[in-house]
Amino acid sequence: MKAGANRLDVNAGTPPDREVEDMCWLVDTIQEATETPLCLDSPNPAALRAGLELTKPQTMLNSTTAETERAQEMIPLAAEHNCLLIGLTIEDAGMPSTAEARVEIASHIIEEAKGAGIPVENMYIDPLVRSVATEPEQGRALLEATRLIREKFPSSHIVYGLSNISFGLPARSLMNRTLLAMAMACGLDSAIINPTDNQMMAALRAGEALLGEDEFCANYLSAFRSGLLG
Amino acid sequence: MKAGANRLDVNAGTPPDREVEDMCWLVDTIQEATETPLCLDSPNPAALRAGLELTKPQTMLNSTTAETERAQEMIPLAAEHNCLLIGLTIEDAGMPSTAEARVEIASHIIEEAKGAGIPVENMYIDPLVRSVATEPEQGRALLEATRLIREKFPSSHIVYGLSNISFGLPARSLMNRTLLAMAMACGLDSAIINPTDNQMMAALRAGEALLGEDEFCANYLSAFRSGLLG
Repeated sequence: MKAGANRLDVNAGTPPDREVEDMCWLVDTIQEATETPLCLDSPNPAALRAGLELTKPQTMLNSTTAETERAQEMIPLAAEHNCLLIGLTIEDAGMPSTAEARVEIASHIIEEAKGAGIPVENMYIDPLVRSVATEPEQGRALLEATRLIREKFPSSHIVYGLSNISFGLPARSLMNRTLLAMAMACGLDSAIINPTDNQMMAALRAGEALLGEDEFCANYLSAFRSGLLG
Repeated sequence: MKAGANRLDVNAGTPPDREVEDMCWLVDTIQEATETPLCLDSPNPAALRAGLELTKPQTMLNSTTAETERAQEMIPLAAEHNCLLIGLTIEDAGMPSTAEARVEIASHIIEEAKGAGIPVENMYIDPLVRSVATEPEQGRALLEATRLIREKFPSSHIVYGLSNISFGLPARSLMNRTLLAMAMACGLDSAIINPTDNQMMAALRAGEALLGEDEFCANYLSAFRSGLLG
């Protein structure tokens, strides 16, 4: 939070039979330390529901997909608790490879959510960051999907699990922050990143100034004066 | 050249009455040391013409604009010597502020050049990098212009004088390399940069890998093994 995080992702990562209890312990423990809003991260609706009993409105859920079973649990849960909702572009048929397929799945999720009463401003589409080490064409597909989703749903958010891009490569932080800059130019407005990675945060500050989102470069200059721009 | 430059920009930067002589001295001196292709950089057609007498075909000229007088001198000169030609998006009325005005001027230059026999593949459009320190909206306009020019003229090149973006700001290299990554995502394929700036070159290598332009991440991995990715 001191390093600039706006929200904390909370993932118990434990087996289903322990996850409800562990999620509650995590949420309690974190909320004793900080008022930073949370993002409850699990594929298990029971763990999310238990966590939501302990958190404030506008908690974020990570995540629904367009898979029938998962969407049928996650979207009503998010609607009921007035959540922000991450929608991963995965469908029953699997993970898309092209930009166009990602946009189609994103549209499906946003329409379903809207039908359940979740406004598009509360939706965070994650167009699936996949490593360029094994699939070199996936970087361009991801950026194109980002541009198309931004164009089609200007008031939705777009979020990346940024570090997936560099799985299997060396100098991962370089790859991650370079993708951050590229994606910001295409419409990315949020990401799961490590805020204590100074070079990542420097790229973020520079990117915001370059996009005119940092009036008079005030944050950029203040980060520079604090020695955070290297 | 050892640091990875594909071409060297040659600018005498001396008063017009000395510039012809100085340009020739520069070209001779550089060509004694390296066979790297050159980019002759001057607003003065006499200096460019003199330099062209000493260089090989496919030398680059920096630059024409859409200003009537300048285009009338530069475009035929470039056509006559089979040059690559940088076209700055400036017109008689001055420098454009919007993306759309930049695209219009770029179209005008490309059409004029085509009429003189210069193929669009030999054209390098420079959509004018202006500092975000004084004009915060210019970063976004520049990136949008880049995207639109790439879309309209897929076989033309787009070039930036990258460092202009950060004039008046601290940590300029950070700003410059962040813009490089953003612009590559929008269609930039060349830039005047300092190849001995390792962090700049690291961003370039990462950007190429992210766009699928570095098969099996071979250049990225080789730069890493050489200790160039930090």
